[in-house]
Amino acid sequence: MNRICQLFGIEYPIVQGGMIWCSGWELAAAVSNAGGLGLIGAGSMYPEILRDHIRKTKIATSKPFGVNLPLLYPEIENHIQIIVDEKVPIVFTSAGNPNKYTAKLKSNGIVVVHVVANTKFALKCVEAGVDAIVAEGFEAGGHNGFEETTTMSLVPLIRKTVSIPLIAAGGIGCGKSMLAAMALGAEGVQIGSRFVASVESSAHPEFKQKIVAAKEGETELILKNLVPVRLLKNDFYREMKKMENERAGISQLVEHLGKGRAKKGMFEGDMITGELEIGQVSANIDQILPVSEIISTLLAEYRAQLALLPKL
Amino acid sequence: MNRICQLFGIEYPIVQGGMIWCSGWELAAAVSNAGGLGLIGAGSMYPEILRDHIRKTKIATSKPFGVNLPLLYPEIENHIQIIVDEKVPIVFTSAGNPNKYTAKLKSNGIVVVHVVANTKFALKCVEAGVDAIVAEGFEAGGHNGFEETTTMSLVPLIRKTVSIPLIAAGGIGCGKSMLAAMALGAEGVQIGSRFVASVESSAHPEFKQKIVAAKEGETELILKNLVPVRLLKNDFYREMKKMENERAGISQLVEHLGKGRAKKGMFEGDMITGELEIGQVSANIDQILPVSEIISTLLAEYRAQLALLPKL
Repeated sequence: MNRICQLFGIEYPIVQGGMIWCSGWELAAAVSNAGGLGLIGAGSMYPEILRDHIRKTKIATSKPFGVNLPLLYPEIENHIQIIVDEKVPIVFTSAGNPNKYTAKLKSNGIVVVHVVANTKFALKCVEAGVDAIVAEGFEAGGHNGFEETTTMSLVPLIRKTVSIPLIAAGGIGCGKSMLAAMALGAEGVQIGSRFVASVESSAHPEFKQKIVAAKEGETELILKNLVPVRLLKNDFYREMKKMENERAGISQLVEHLGKGRAKKGMFEGDMITGELEIGQVSANIDQILPVSEIISTLLAEYRAQLALLPKL
Repeated sequence: MNRICQLFGIEYPIVQGGMIWCSGWELAAAVSNAGGLGLIGAGSMYPEILRDHIRKTKIATSKPFGVNLPLLYPEIENHIQIIVDEKVPIVFTSAGNPNKYTAKLKSNGIVVVHVVANTKFALKCVEAGVDAIVAEGFEAGGHNGFEETTTMSLVPLIRKTVSIPLIAAGGIGCGKSMLAAMALGAEGVQIGSRFVASVESSAHPEFKQKIVAAKEGETELILKNLVPVRLLKNDFYREMKKMENERAGISQLVEHLGKGRAKKGMFEGDMITGELEIGQVSANIDQILPVSEIISTLLAEYRAQLALLPKL
């Protein structure tokens, strides 16, 4: 049996990325109900909101689900306490050192997965005792690594370096790319953007429409000296890009970035001055679909493409 | 039968990228003799040198081979005349509009393939009547597209857009990534960097060693406003990057770039002030090997990984 399915107790090795402002209980429960692993994106939730989403997810699905926890979140200790109290079975951590919370989570019986963008952190994950790794490439939406290593380059390298269960992320939105991820040596996939443009995601309808409309070259990884992030190109992106090009200092960038930009864009639907985090794969997303249909389409295309692979 | 093998009359759908300074007759003949398609890189050859390499390739192999022709090359008309005179069976064109020379080459019985980095040019290729397309992602070495679309994102998009035979390039250096390329919908792969670090490539031994030593994050796509190119990071790269960061004008960049930088680095072995074009996949290249061993290793890993793919 596939190690990722076994580790999480799920039917298909498809994890829905726990993204800020887009992945509440409705999306997580829908993905888990369809046989994948749904994740609540805690990075945009106050502790009590997170608790509410966890409880609603438990009501909406009897299947395993998890929480994505960015380790740089200011109220992280509260988040962890709630996750333990609410007996969340699986936690994906990201944006930080896996050494910090893995032992505590695992001592509470929680399966821990950490997201990395290079082999250095993959090795740190093994040391920290995580149960699985997500290797995320340059094409992924939102926050990203400094090395710009793409999924195609990254996954075989990490596969060669560590032997624990491996999930690929970045550029995966169809059955072909899911099959490619498995060919690269991953045992599962984490899919973000494709699920943002689902019926059940909490992204604002305007943002979903913008993803469907996006073409090649309409996202870019910027803020490379501050905190690299892939954004959909809009006025907000252009302002940040201009400041970056003019070699603005980090404090200026942080000040202009301000607070609540991501909420404004992705959750409240301000397509002009809001921050819109999304992956390159948006160019290949043409429709807003229900989660169950996204997953059944992924699997059908995966199987069809697998049958076409030449033996050589 | 695989359409790429059929089109070129080769055993395995593996094309060796026709790279400047690294792909002379010895490399092209070795790849063709091993059952792939070897390409002579005309971009760094004066017309009479190209003729010499074509003649030597014909002596060294009885298998099909080709020439890679960057369409921006100043003596392009002479190159084409030599290719026609010498009855080269296959030409890969790049860096230009496929409309310009495809008809002339095809009227001489030559199979024409064009390299693209986006769907817009893929559609132009179909209009121009090329026989196949190479879709090259952001992770590839040397010259590259403006959109930064990675192989994982690009290939399924191009596959959806055009139905002619499709070859993937960028990030492919092992059997796993070759299988991934086929999973993405390609029918063959073009491999560059892995063949630069081969015994038969004409790259300087110092350059080959530097590829073997390269780790993640040691290449970068720069000169994005002039002509995007992925380089190995050395003093030359750092100077160009600094000028780019300081918003140097195109004329300044071109002047500093100067002439002969690529030859100096890749062919003459100046690792400090020479230009070193190589792909991200260099981080996953650990040995200089003979071409026959590179290809047999690729195929063995491809087959092993194919057998591991879960049916789901």
